[in-house]
Amino acid sequence: MNFLEERILQDGIIKQGNILKIDSFLNHQIDIDIMRQIAYELKRRFKGVEVNKVLTVEASGIAIATMLANLYDVPVVFAKKNETANSTDDKYVSQAFSFTNKKQNNFFISRPYLQATDKVLIVDDFLADGQAVHALIDLVNQAEAKVAGIGIAVEKGFQQGGRMLREEGYNLESIAIVESMDWETQTIRFLEQPITIQDDGNLKLSLVW
Amino acid sequence: MNFLEERILQDGIIKQGNILKIDSFLNHQIDIDIMRQIAYELKRRFKGVEVNKVLTVEASGIAIATMLANLYDVPVVFAKKNETANSTDDKYVSQAFSFTNKKQNNFFISRPYLQATDKVLIVDDFLADGQAVHALIDLVNQAEAKVAGIGIAVEKGFQQGGRMLREEGYNLESIAIVESMDWETQTIRFLEQPITIQDDGNLKLSLVW
Repeated sequence: MNFLEERILQDGIIKQGNILKIDSFLNHQIDIDIMRQIAYELKRRFKGVEVNKVLTVEASGIAIATMLANLYDVPVVFAKKNETANSTDDKYVSQAFSFTNKKQNNFFISRPYLQATDKVLIVDDFLADGQAVHALIDLVNQAEAKVAGIGIAVEKGFQQGGRMLREEGYNLESIAIVESMDWETQTIRFLEQPITIQDDGNLKLSLVW
Repeated sequence: MNFLEERILQDGIIKQGNILKIDSFLNHQIDIDIMRQIAYELKRRFKGVEVNKVLTVEASGIAIATMLANLYDVPVVFAKKNETANSTDDKYVSQAFSFTNKKQNNFFISRPYLQATDKVLIVDDFLADGQAVHALIDLVNQAEAKVAGIGIAVEKGFQQGGRMLREEGYNLESIAIVESMDWETQTIRFLEQPITIQDDGNLKLSLVW
């Protein structure tokens, strides 16, 4: 098991309806050391991939995106979900249905912040049905930019998002892939992932098995 | 002028209704180097203050909070604005009116993530009327924790938030304080702030005048 799978087993709570609650360290309270390890691990997995922008959507993806952008030394862009008085009319818009909040959200990005020359690493804390990631891909495509890869902390492997994105040919990396979970017994199974041992200074941070 | 005031003059856009748009580097697209400098500068200004948690509210405060927590090596907690199916009933709740979105927001934090022993540094990207910061203070008070300080990137000095918080005795530091701005001439004046030269390794990062 890797550091994130171990932490999920230690502090995650499974709730009825296939809900995995890990807001004690990932998306409400944020353990900054776990966040650093997630950023190092994603950068390691996308080694050799050219990235000049990290893209996410508000709100909980912003912490991962910021830590990762700090390693790459590139800007973050986060898509906004609600139009504000400050927003410009000059924007790309896409839609995503949120199963968590049971509503359709508009995702939008001001046009100047996605350029056709951008090589965009899309990141988020969770991947389930893939609605949010598909909306972000749509925004990148509207800008005629390139999706360099998709980096996820926790993927619900039993939902369709990951399979669809891989079939569509995207370079998707999820640090922990939940294969199945059961709220009655509070047990969780992770998909075993290949470990590539590389001569990489960050390896000690990312491979604590 | 400091690094943030310079950047505001360079890239900020003043819109009618005293709106300062700096979403090209602070709260939509994020310049990661500016974010690093903001974090270093806030840590410098709160030198000697004990902090064991950084608190903000989603969404745009999260990037600053994450970078600052990375320097302090403490957890971030971000208050949520909308209740989700994943959220627990065991939470602190406060209210803030958002003048940007013209609506009343519920801010909430799950109780376990604010403890009576916490020394909380509250941070946000903008301070105007102080509604958001006052709601965060209220949440800290409900938990019987301590507000160690309040760190802001950009304060609108001509609105009441900063004055009120200082009168209430809070240790408030804003890196850039806008004294006045005029959308017709696109001019902006900053409040001159005292510069304390300290023997601090981070000083060269934070004091580019």
